[in-house]
Amino acid sequence: TKQDTIDIAKLASEVLNGQRTSLSKAITLIESSNAEHKEQAQKLLQELLPYTGESIRIGITGVPGAGKSTFIEALGMMLCNLGKKVAVLAIDPSSTLSGGSILGDKTRMEELSRNKMAFVRPSPNAGTLGGVHKKSRETMLLCEAAGYDVILIETVGVGQSETYVRGMVDFFLLLVLTGAGDELQGMKKGIMELADGIVVHKSDGDNIQKARKTVREYRQILHFLQPATPGWMGKALPVSSLEKTGLSDVWEMICQFEQTMKDTSFWKTRRLEQTKEWFHTMIRDSLIDSFFQNTDRKIQVKSLEEAILQGEMTVAQGVSKLFSEGAR
Amino acid sequence: TKQDTIDIAKLASEVLNGQRTSLSKAITLIESSNAEHKEQAQKLLQELLPYTGESIRIGITGVPGAGKSTFIEALGMMLCNLGKKVAVLAIDPSSTLSGGSILGDKTRMEELSRNKMAFVRPSPNAGTLGGVHKKSRETMLLCEAAGYDVILIETVGVGQSETYVRGMVDFFLLLVLTGAGDELQGMKKGIMELADGIVVHKSDGDNIQKARKTVREYRQILHFLQPATPGWMGKALPVSSLEKTGLSDVWEMICQFEQTMKDTSFWKTRRLEQTKEWFHTMIRDSLIDSFFQNTDRKIQVKSLEEAILQGEMTVAQGVSKLFSEGAR
Repeated sequence: TKQDTIDIAKLASEVLNGQRTSLSKAITLIESSNAEHKEQAQKLLQELLPYTGESIRIGITGVPGAGKSTFIEALGMMLCNLGKKVAVLAIDPSSTLSGGSILGDKTRMEELSRNKMAFVRPSPNAGTLGGVHKKSRETMLLCEAAGYDVILIETVGVGQSETYVRGMVDFFLLLVLTGAGDELQGMKKGIMELADGIVVHKSDGDNIQKARKTVREYRQILHFLQPATPGWMGKALPVSSLEKTGLSDVWEMICQFEQTMKDTSFWKTRRLEQTKEWFHTMIRDSLIDSFFQNTDRKIQVKSLEEAILQGEMTVAQGVSKLFSEGAR
Repeated sequence: TKQDTIDIAKLASEVLNGQRTSLSKAITLIESSNAEHKEQAQKLLQELLPYTGESIRIGITGVPGAGKSTFIEALGMMLCNLGKKVAVLAIDPSSTLSGGSILGDKTRMEELSRNKMAFVRPSPNAGTLGGVHKKSRETMLLCEAAGYDVILIETVGVGQSETYVRGMVDFFLLLVLTGAGDELQGMKKGIMELADGIVVHKSDGDNIQKARKTVREYRQILHFLQPATPGWMGKALPVSSLEKTGLSDVWEMICQFEQTMKDTSFWKTRRLEQTKEWFHTMIRDSLIDSFFQNTDRKIQVKSLEEAILQGEMTVAQGVSKLFSEGAR
C-alpha cells in the first residue's frame, strides 16, 4: 500500500542519515518473520543496497570464557577514539547455553553501547547458529548503509556459526587463552583454518610469560596450516583488554590485511564469491526446508532411516522409496 | 522379469563365494547408470546386505606424488602375506587431472593385482570426487560380502573426495612427504583434521633424517588439533614402501585403533552415524539435482545470480523470485 511505501522511503533515508533509532527499527523489521514485514524489509534493503559494502567486516570468535565481549568493547572503544564508527552484532548472552551471568548481561559492552560513535546490536535468537542471527548478513548491510566503518560480528566457537560468519566477513579473528593444546580441545574442528588472525587474550599480569609462549605455539601452527585467505599469512598476537595492550597491533594487522587484499583485488573477488555462495546456500536451504516442512514426509524419512539402520534396506532403496511414493 | 531374478540370485551367491569375476561383474552392475541395471543392482545389494560390515574400512589420501599406489601395493602385499583378503578401490590415474604417466598406468599395483588374496578395482570416473566413484560405498559393501577383510579406498588429496571417503571408512590415513610446511600448502584445507594417522612416506636412503624430523613436526600438529576420531590420538609414522619399513607399524596402529574403538563401542556407533548421514546426504543431493535438472531453471538461477552480483537485487529477493515464479 501507499502508506507502507512512504514509511520505507522515510526509514531508508533516516538509516542513511545514521539515525540510530531508525537503524534499530530497520533491523527489527529485517528480523521479523511476519510476511508483510518481510516484504517491507526487502524493499528497504533494495533501497539501501547501493550504499552498502564500504565497511571492513570482521568476524570474532572464541570459546566461552575467552573474553569476547570484553575484547570487542576494548577494540571498539579504541576504534571510536580513532574516529571510526563501529557497529557490533553481538550475541545476546541470555540466548546461548554457555550463557553469561545475569550480572554479565547488564554490564556487557556498556561503555561501548553509550558511545555515540558505536552501535551495539545483540542478536535475539541463538538457534543452531550459536548466537548468530540468520539475518546477520542483512543487518550488516543496514549498518553499512548507516555509515558504520567497521562491523564487528561476534560468534561463539561452536556449531555452524563460524562457517556462516566466515562466509560474510573480510577478516576472521580467533580469540584464545593461554595453553594452546588444552584450549583447542574445546574448539570446533577446523576453526583454526578459518582464522586470519589469532588473539591470545588476557595477556596481562602473571599471565604474560605464558601468553608469549602460547603466541609462539599458535604462530607455529599457523605456519603449518593452509592460510584462511590466500596470500595472507595468519598472525598471532598477545592482547590485554584490561591493560589495553596489543589492541593497536590487532588493528594494524587488520589494516595491513585490507591493504594486501585490495592490492591484489582479492578483497572484491572474495566478496562477490561470498554473495554468490550465499545465494546458492539459500536456494539449497529453501529446497530442503520446504521438503521437510511436510510432517508426513518427516515421519516417512524417520521410518526409512530406521529400516536402513536395522539393515533392512540399502540407503539407495530408502531414497528411491522416498521420491517415488508421490513425494514432490 | 523371471530371468533377471535368477541372475541376481546366482550372482549374489557367486559373490558370497568370493568369485572375483562375479564380484567384478556385480560392481559393474552397481556402477551402471542404466535404469534396469540400477534396479537389479539394488536387488543384489539387498540380497547381500546381511553379509556386509565385517571388514576394516581404511581411507588413504595424499597429494599427487606422495606415492599412494606404491604404498597401497606394499601395505596390501604385507596384509596378504598375513593371510588377510584385501580389496582396493583404486583411482584410475587416467581419470584424474594430476594423472599418472601412461607407463604408470600399466604398472600400477601390478603385483597386488596378481595376488589371489587381493582384489584391485580402479574407479572408472573421476568427476567432482577426485577419482572416487559415487558408488564406492556400494562397491565396498560388495567386497565385504565377497569376504574381504580389509578394504583400502584410495582418494586424491583435493576437492570433496576426502570428506566423502571419511564418511564411509573407519580409519583415515594421510600420506605426506618430508617438509611438512611445504607439503601442507598443496593440500585441501582441513584434511589434517580428518586423519587418524599420518604416514611420512619415502622415508628411505638419504631421506631418513628429514623424514624423522617431519614425523616429529606432524606429531606436534596432531597434538594441537582436535582428533578426527574422539578418543583416538592421531599418530605419525615414517614408512618406506621401497625398503618395506614401517608398514607393520601402520598395520599395528590400525589394529590398535580398531581395538580401542570396539572397546568403547564407538566403532558401531560411528558406522550407524555414517549410514544415517549418507541417507540424508543422498536425500539432499537428490533434491538439489532434480531442482537443477531443469534447463530453464539453470538459466534463471544464472541470470538472478548476475543481477545479485551487479547489486541490482538482494540475495533474498533472488531466492524469493526463483521460488515464486512457478518453480517446484
